[in-house]
Amino acid sequence: MQKPLILVTNDDGITAPGIRNLVNFMNEIGEVIVVAPNSPQSGKGHAITINQTLTFEEINLDGPQKDYSLSGTPVDCVKFALDKILTRKPDLVVSGINHGSNSSINVIYSGTMSAAVEAGVEGLQAIGFSLLDFSWDADFSQAKDFIQNIVIKILANPLPKGTVLNVNIPKLPKEEIKGVKVCRQAHAKWEENFDERINPHGKKYYWLTGYFNNMDSGDDADETALANGYISIVPVKFDLTAHEHLQQLREMME
Amino acid sequence: MQKPLILVTNDDGITAPGIRNLVNFMNEIGEVIVVAPNSPQSGKGHAITINQTLTFEEINLDGPQKDYSLSGTPVDCVKFALDKILTRKPDLVVSGINHGSNSSINVIYSGTMSAAVEAGVEGLQAIGFSLLDFSWDADFSQAKDFIQNIVIKILANPLPKGTVLNVNIPKLPKEEIKGVKVCRQAHAKWEENFDERINPHGKKYYWLTGYFNNMDSGDDADETALANGYISIVPVKFDLTAHEHLQQLREMME
Repeated sequence: MQKPLILVTNDDGITAPGIRNLVNFMNEIGEVIVVAPNSPQSGKGHAITINQTLTFEEINLDGPQKDYSLSGTPVDCVKFALDKILTRKPDLVVSGINHGSNSSINVIYSGTMSAAVEAGVEGLQAIGFSLLDFSWDADFSQAKDFIQNIVIKILANPLPKGTVLNVNIPKLPKEEIKGVKVCRQAHAKWEENFDERINPHGKKYYWLTGYFNNMDSGDDADETALANGYISIVPVKFDLTAHEHLQQLREMME
Repeated sequence: MQKPLILVTNDDGITAPGIRNLVNFMNEIGEVIVVAPNSPQSGKGHAITINQTLTFEEINLDGPQKDYSLSGTPVDCVKFALDKILTRKPDLVVSGINHGSNSSINVIYSGTMSAAVEAGVEGLQAIGFSLLDFSWDADFSQAKDFIQNIVIKILANPLPKGTVLNVNIPKLPKEEIKGVKVCRQAHAKWEENFDERINPHGKKYYWLTGYFNNMDSGDDADETALANGYISIVPVKFDLTAHEHLQQLREMME
């Protein structure tokens, strides 16, 4: 039987430890092709490269997989892989492992998750993985068995059409992770606090900073699951229509 | 009575004809503050600027409004306006008028709509407007009455929490526009076709191109409404959870 073809991408760049770990985990499950950004692309959301051109290189990294480095965003990587690199449709697209959380509202800013969403738009099975540890030295090995189990389950039982998974993993040793919980996106937001500084020429400039405000203590929210030591899995869709408000809005617009 | 405070932004840049028209339309309704990108930001999706700094300038353009030009993305503009420029919470955030469609799946790539979505995340009323005409010389005046009517309705009847509007306007003379239709996001996607070229040094490079594939002929889809000469209004939400699949996924993950 042909091994499943798994496309791997991320937003931290093709050499980030998170993606290298994910590639190693996927090499044990399928045939792996990596198409990932040649530079960090955190916070790029669903950006695509329209007004600039793209270049790519095949690079040699350890392992049986093929690695291609692209000068674009995570979403560009998925589009480019499908059009120019892959010779057959992948059975699964995995993105990550992100260095840091993509739970709750972070899903909309996340390049990691936008790559998974783009794969979903293309009609593919897709999962984004994130570890709640921003450190470059994060210990991704703790999550290996959980990630492989989720991937094997999805390969065996495809996700409903129009749905991809957002998987976040707490920063805990394997034996302290209590299991996985299927959750909804918590109601949360970032409270902005731009940090104002003065450059050597006397002009003000700003760094985007802020703090995360979780306004949701629901048992079924991803933030709650993570705080309680569970891996959170949120099914994410790209039909953004608020179907539940269509009728009310129709009456309002009459 | 205090006039409503309206924050205006876009993704084509602060000097684009689309936003200058929208500013003029809004000046007849409220007090207007513009915080918009200093350069084109089409296709930037929900990108935010994390690894670079931002600067802004107050610039003088015709009209009673205040105009601020920011070196960031549309989403940065909303965040920055709320934290550093506005002295009170705006009653409404409007984004656009985009030069070109943001209907159906384009909502996820659109900087125009991402600015509106970001305003929604901040708990604000928000609308993104787009005209189905990419031309810099597009005739935005045809849409003036429709846009003002929608804005006045939303100021009088706030949208349900967690919802913003995606308004697309067909390229038609005013008298040929048949009215507005509240719709769902059509099921559609772009079919990629990267255009390969060779640079003067012999290296391949690529332009992202493709064609739009509408796979949805439903009467209630935005593409259908637009094709039939209606303005489409889609209520858009930023809770991306596929609530309808939570139970199935829980059973799958057991």
